[in-house]
Amino acid sequence: MHTVSGRRGTLPASPAKSKPKRKGPGRPEGASGVREAILDAAECLFANAGYAGTTLREVSDQAHVTQALINYYFGSKYGLFEEVFLRRGAAVSEERVANLEALRAEGTPSVGEIVRAFLLPTVVLRTSEQGRHFLRLQARLHTEPPHISYALRDKAYGQSTQLYVEALQAALPGLSALDAHWRITLMVGTYLYAFSDSHRMEERVPEGQYDADDWQSLIDQVTAFVVGGMSVPANA
Amino acid sequence: MHTVSGRRGTLPASPAKSKPKRKGPGRPEGASGVREAILDAAECLFANAGYAGTTLREVSDQAHVTQALINYYFGSKYGLFEEVFLRRGAAVSEERVANLEALRAEGTPSVGEIVRAFLLPTVVLRTSEQGRHFLRLQARLHTEPPHISYALRDKAYGQSTQLYVEALQAALPGLSALDAHWRITLMVGTYLYAFSDSHRMEERVPEGQYDADDWQSLIDQVTAFVVGGMSVPANA
Repeated sequence: MHTVSGRRGTLPASPAKSKPKRKGPGRPEGASGVREAILDAAECLFANAGYAGTTLREVSDQAHVTQALINYYFGSKYGLFEEVFLRRGAAVSEERVANLEALRAEGTPSVGEIVRAFLLPTVVLRTSEQGRHFLRLQARLHTEPPHISYALRDKAYGQSTQLYVEALQAALPGLSALDAHWRITLMVGTYLYAFSDSHRMEERVPEGQYDADDWQSLIDQVTAFVVGGMSVPANA
Repeated sequence: MHTVSGRRGTLPASPAKSKPKRKGPGRPEGASGVREAILDAAECLFANAGYAGTTLREVSDQAHVTQALINYYFGSKYGLFEEVFLRRGAAVSEERVANLEALRAEGTPSVGEIVRAFLLPTVVLRTSEQGRHFLRLQARLHTEPPHISYALRDKAYGQSTQLYVEALQAALPGLSALDAHWRITLMVGTYLYAFSDSHRMEERVPEGQYDADDWQSLIDQVTAFVVGGMSVPANA
């Protein structure tokens, strides 16, 4: 298995990395379009079957490319998985940092502002089908064995999450480092589940009460819960 | 794929179903011991690689039995997966109901009592290595595709979770059905993550501050957060 610093690091950075995918016949024929098509196909497959349950053959079939081309771009199955995750994970992380910096420019952010700034870049991924694949993939990633998940999660989110731990301590003076880490961790668990559709709310509540496309109600619901949880008195 | 009401329903109920596993050379040689050994091996493998990523050959290798024997007991890979999940899931669900009934016998339970009654049967699974495999498997199950996960989760937890929704509404008069379902759902997301080791808290906090074996601190931390989240004023 390739490590995080393996083959992938030697490939030129793709200018298409953060471009939205163009669907159907309008998809550009160039290299960046092919690369994005591979990532889109892999994102959907990894989301459904997990890392071990997905083969490069399935990715090549769904993206209509050869396995050799996948290996050329990504070096290995793990290299592909890493790029699928980092494509959106790194963007989410950057937005979280930018949101926090904007808040700090105006003073010490409140718990509610911190939570919203953290959740917003993720919840908006629900507005596209491909973004929802990512949210399911991300929920899954956290349950993959440590050698698959941990370095990758840390690379995408380690630094930005640490900034939120510090912001929470500033908002709640006296909160210990352990409690601050726990509360950020419990927020992560809450949103991973709430944003990924795996809860199947639509089958639990009276018909018509849950609208999976209403991401604003979703972030309101999750923010209220998390702020309540974060604001309880610290453990002795 | 066999459905929930498929082949498995025709097998005789095993008297060993809820017996604790006896480890090592002391394991009984009879049929129930073999059956439990298959379930233990499958629990560990499914927890690590997910449903699609685990083969019956791997289970048979790890349990030191033939694939034919696995098929005899469980009918199919899905039948095996189902039994692995229900072996502990049904017991957790029964305990949750019993805990709630005991509380109700003394009046209307508080939010804190409700949350603790729900979490306790799960957190104690952390006291054994095999129980921790289950907790990882369960966190994973929630990210499997709906056709694999939903009927099974509903079978194990549907009825008991509904009782907790109703208990929460009794504890918080005026809470809508939608909000009550949401808060129970967010509690589930929180504990799935918090109890499954996938958060890797031990690498986030200063050394020695997190003790993965201290399940009492764990349930205190999660209960405080969830009670805070559940007790916020209802959304308009």
